[in-house]
Amino acid sequence: MSSTHNASQPARATTTGAVTTGAISPAHHKQYLIGSRDDLRVPVRTVHLTNDSTVRLYDTSGPYTDPAYEVDVRRGLPAIRDAWIDERGDTERYDGRIAALGVLPGTEVVRPRRAVGGKAVTQLAYARRGEITPEMEYVAIREGLPAEAVRDAIASGKAVLPANVNHPEIEPMIIGKDFLVKVNANIGNSAVTSSIEEETDKLVWAIRWGADTVMDLSTGDDIHTTREWIVRNSPVPIGTVPLYQALEKVNGKPEALTWELYRDTVIEQAEQGVDYMTVHAGVLLRYVPLTARRKTGIVSRGGSIMAAWCLAHHEENFLYTNFRELTEILRQYDITYSLGDGLRPGSTYDANDEAQFAELTTLGELGRIAREMDVQVMIEGPGHVPMHKIKENIDLQQEICDEAPFYTLGPLTTDIAPGYDHITSAIGAAMIGMWGTAMLCYVTPKEHLGLPDRDDVKAGVIAYKIAAHAADLAKGHPTAHEWDDALSDARFEFRWQDQFDLALDPDTARAFHDETLPAAPAKTAHFCSMCGPKFCSMKISRQIRDEHGDGSSAVDSAYDAEALAGMQAKSAEFAAQGGRVYLPLAAD
Amino acid sequence: MSSTHNASQPARATTTGAVTTGAISPAHHKQYLIGSRDDLRVPVRTVHLTNDSTVRLYDTSGPYTDPAYEVDVRRGLPAIRDAWIDERGDTERYDGRIAALGVLPGTEVVRPRRAVGGKAVTQLAYARRGEITPEMEYVAIREGLPAEAVRDAIASGKAVLPANVNHPEIEPMIIGKDFLVKVNANIGNSAVTSSIEEETDKLVWAIRWGADTVMDLSTGDDIHTTREWIVRNSPVPIGTVPLYQALEKVNGKPEALTWELYRDTVIEQAEQGVDYMTVHAGVLLRYVPLTARRKTGIVSRGGSIMAAWCLAHHEENFLYTNFRELTEILRQYDITYSLGDGLRPGSTYDANDEAQFAELTTLGELGRIAREMDVQVMIEGPGHVPMHKIKENIDLQQEICDEAPFYTLGPLTTDIAPGYDHITSAIGAAMIGMWGTAMLCYVTPKEHLGLPDRDDVKAGVIAYKIAAHAADLAKGHPTAHEWDDALSDARFEFRWQDQFDLALDPDTARAFHDETLPAAPAKTAHFCSMCGPKFCSMKISRQIRDEHGDGSSAVDSAYDAEALAGMQAKSAEFAAQGGRVYLPLAAD
Repeated sequence: MSSTHNASQPARATTTGAVTTGAISPAHHKQYLIGSRDDLRVPVRTVHLTNDSTVRLYDTSGPYTDPAYEVDVRRGLPAIRDAWIDERGDTERYDGRIAALGVLPGTEVVRPRRAVGGKAVTQLAYARRGEITPEMEYVAIREGLPAEAVRDAIASGKAVLPANVNHPEIEPMIIGKDFLVKVNANIGNSAVTSSIEEETDKLVWAIRWGADTVMDLSTGDDIHTTREWIVRNSPVPIGTVPLYQALEKVNGKPEALTWELYRDTVIEQAEQGVDYMTVHAGVLLRYVPLTARRKTGIVSRGGSIMAAWCLAHHEENFLYTNFRELTEILRQYDITYSLGDGLRPGSTYDANDEAQFAELTTLGELGRIAREMDVQVMIEGPGHVPMHKIKENIDLQQEICDEAPFYTLGPLTTDIAPGYDHITSAIGAAMIGMWGTAMLCYVTPKEHLGLPDRDDVKAGVIAYKIAAHAADLAKGHPTAHEWDDALSDARFEFRWQDQFDLALDPDTARAFHDETLPAAPAKTAHFCSMCGPKFCSMKISRQIRDEHGDGSSAVDSAYDAEALAGMQAKSAEFAAQGGRVYLPLAAD
Repeated sequence: MSSTHNASQPARATTTGAVTTGAISPAHHKQYLIGSRDDLRVPVRTVHLTNDSTVRLYDTSGPYTDPAYEVDVRRGLPAIRDAWIDERGDTERYDGRIAALGVLPGTEVVRPRRAVGGKAVTQLAYARRGEITPEMEYVAIREGLPAEAVRDAIASGKAVLPANVNHPEIEPMIIGKDFLVKVNANIGNSAVTSSIEEETDKLVWAIRWGADTVMDLSTGDDIHTTREWIVRNSPVPIGTVPLYQALEKVNGKPEALTWELYRDTVIEQAEQGVDYMTVHAGVLLRYVPLTARRKTGIVSRGGSIMAAWCLAHHEENFLYTNFRELTEILRQYDITYSLGDGLRPGSTYDANDEAQFAELTTLGELGRIAREMDVQVMIEGPGHVPMHKIKENIDLQQEICDEAPFYTLGPLTTDIAPGYDHITSAIGAAMIGMWGTAMLCYVTPKEHLGLPDRDDVKAGVIAYKIAAHAADLAKGHPTAHEWDDALSDARFEFRWQDQFDLALDPDTARAFHDETLPAAPAKTAHFCSMCGPKFCSMKISRQIRDEHGDGSSAVDSAYDAEALAGMQAKSAEFAAQGGRVYLPLAAD
């Protein structure tokens, strides 16, 4: 299916301009799997082990970890999908808003693309027509699955491939329950606490540790510019909540929002290349009162904005009443819907209540409308949910929303641990991932308390990569166990260097080890390498089974003379060869 | 059932000698619930909130957080159970080994107790006779359950109350699936890296953050002295693995171990007051070969020692062949068995294999023997288990072991994250706790990499308190949700101080908040406090339902004139009063 291409020698992590570049570990080699055409180069991370074997890992880090690539965040990433989009011949360039709104300092204005004649230029439309696009082939290689399976999953609406025609820089990826569970990281500046450069660095930092998509939740004056930096430098799909920017345009007054202003904001972001948009179209006026007796009301920012608008006007949510027109816009850019759960529970007390599931029903209805119009759809989910109520969430979502990809925030399984909500929620995320959630939106240790910094972003991504991978293992993804098995082999054989290189976070594993243990501990004997499993242990095992074939209690029982003699011989042999079976770490 | 007694004014955390004392937060007040007798004083942590309400939390921290108590780690804690044990009149003091082996610098030798005439002085024996001991009443008050339920659970073997007659300092606690899920923290010095004082501090630190029991896994020359400091200063049950000390006595050579030497070690620890002992009596000779084709062989230290002994001698495990004699010793001190899973899986690959479940069958058999002899029993469990194989572990254990309390290490749900195994395993721990595991043995971030320091101990305990509490919530423990609900209320009402005081770790929550947000942010309006749920929202809700009684789609639908007029009136009212519903944290 694909040949491979090696990048040049890897370097260690360095900081180029504002972002971190270079391999995470010297044994990590960036490689590309080449598809059916030369410009279809799928990145993988090949870990070279000390026993001359290699392990190939899924890689989200983009060109930043490719030593052959020269990073310049003022210019952005190469537009690897340009040719693919052009070849389809169904988009045209036009004079968009972007010229007036600004581009990166190192670039010139590129006129945005949109569909010719308003038709659908979505991966869903292509998949339904039976076309395997380069994007689909790319994700098939990336996931190690047949391209036809990818096309079929997209065509059925069970998976999405978010890829705005104005974001040609992305390395395509897929979100669906039959694929690897994905992780989203939220970033976003605020005028007070972070700069545009810091947010670009957070993007690169988040994908370095494994984020599959990134949502830019910026607020404040520089939303457009911040997003431009993020989109142009992002090899992963970028999601936004257009409502946040729309609200800025009306000085934070929800009641001043209008459909026209919202629509204009969506088009602005569509032209910039946003790949998926959270749209809180399910917060219906009649659902708002259902939250009145909750412990924590409406905790979704978008949900509370739309609830405020509905109550202020006492009209139906304009995102709902204009949903078909909105969908017509999204289909012209191939923007994927992420239908927002504005009424998600904000406490375990509120989980699975009438408001939440009422909105879910509407999201199912809207999802069907979107797919009818060839627009890809994900459904967002909670929130705060105690463990015994988690499965109902994914089961209902799959049923109501026709198996559209579920994209959940956690859920947090208890409310008592602010400061540790990456852990309270990784528990829920792993479980809901096992049961079929396609993408997990991370939660950082700062949740409920403040804005995440760089360390929090890493802590959140790592906790969620653990949850996602644990879910992949539990779902029996065909390749997931290879990573665990390689690390377990290294552990058992005391190949410390390989353990570090295979660790999700080699830096931390290495640092922890260096703190308390010598740099190069002696290996201990491998279990049974001395008696030998084939001869000694298995033979004894059979001898004993012959006597106690029923597996019954052997308390106070004696072995017969022949068996005893055999055992005594083995005993002497064992002692002569050093007398060690396998003593684990703690015994050294 | 009980009156309360307030400790004097709480102080902030200080360090007294080698250990941390004082309340975790100024709003935490140590209180005692007084039982049927004045010397039955059950500690609780009462959190005083700014809205004049209080929340009462289970408290494991011992007298160290009581400002009225003068800590002196050289003297140990008061022997609060002395009178209870004396009154039973079934133990006698004798000249034990302890006089020769040493006591704390601030104490004189106290001759150890044991049963008169070798009879059972166990909580199990008392429970079976229908007696509600002070210890049972104590845990009943602590758990908020009827004393008869406690007695019944112990009598049936479904719960254990570990309480050696030579550890009168403990505040009794219970381990069983019908009670709050408990957390164990492992500590233990090593000659190289930590001192006795450091381990005593780790004990106090672990219970400060919520450890319900502590295992002392010390190795090296000072095992006896370290344990003496830990037991005398511990208000929680102490567990050990006597095999570790026995191995030290034969200079680390497993094949030199003998039953006589092991028995002598058990008696030494029994006299010191160890409350439960891990005994790897299920590692049968015939099971050892079953591990030969594993990825990670035998990873339990005790398991590998006994496997080495079995192979060296080619005889059956002496802990198994002498199990009844061992049980006779334990019943004379009321030491609880923790039947060790020496063949637990050390990688997800090895989970739920023949070796593991073969040993479990033997543990079930041994548990029945122990209970027949009136000795309390827990069963230890894995280890490394992918999520989809977790439930089988608890289900089989409950079936095979007659619902004896399951005590599991994690399990870790993936092998790929050394440095983060408190998270990989908190996921598994929460799940197995939900399904009935009674106690969770913590895993720290240093697992597989090095020895945990003070920060690692805290990180491990916090991760496991999250898992245990999430499990309590999911199991529907009658009081568990009160803590979450109180914190959610505080969160929704922007009572920041109360959120911190109710947090599992107030220090971290407060520090994170101070990092990025102003010290006293303005409260935002409560959702619906302006429209009012009874009048506005609910009325509109009813109006709309009258029109769309079937809950069907309202896309493009119009409201009738009367409804519209009502809505417009509400709209004006909303705008006049400020126009805010509820804007969450991120919007401020």
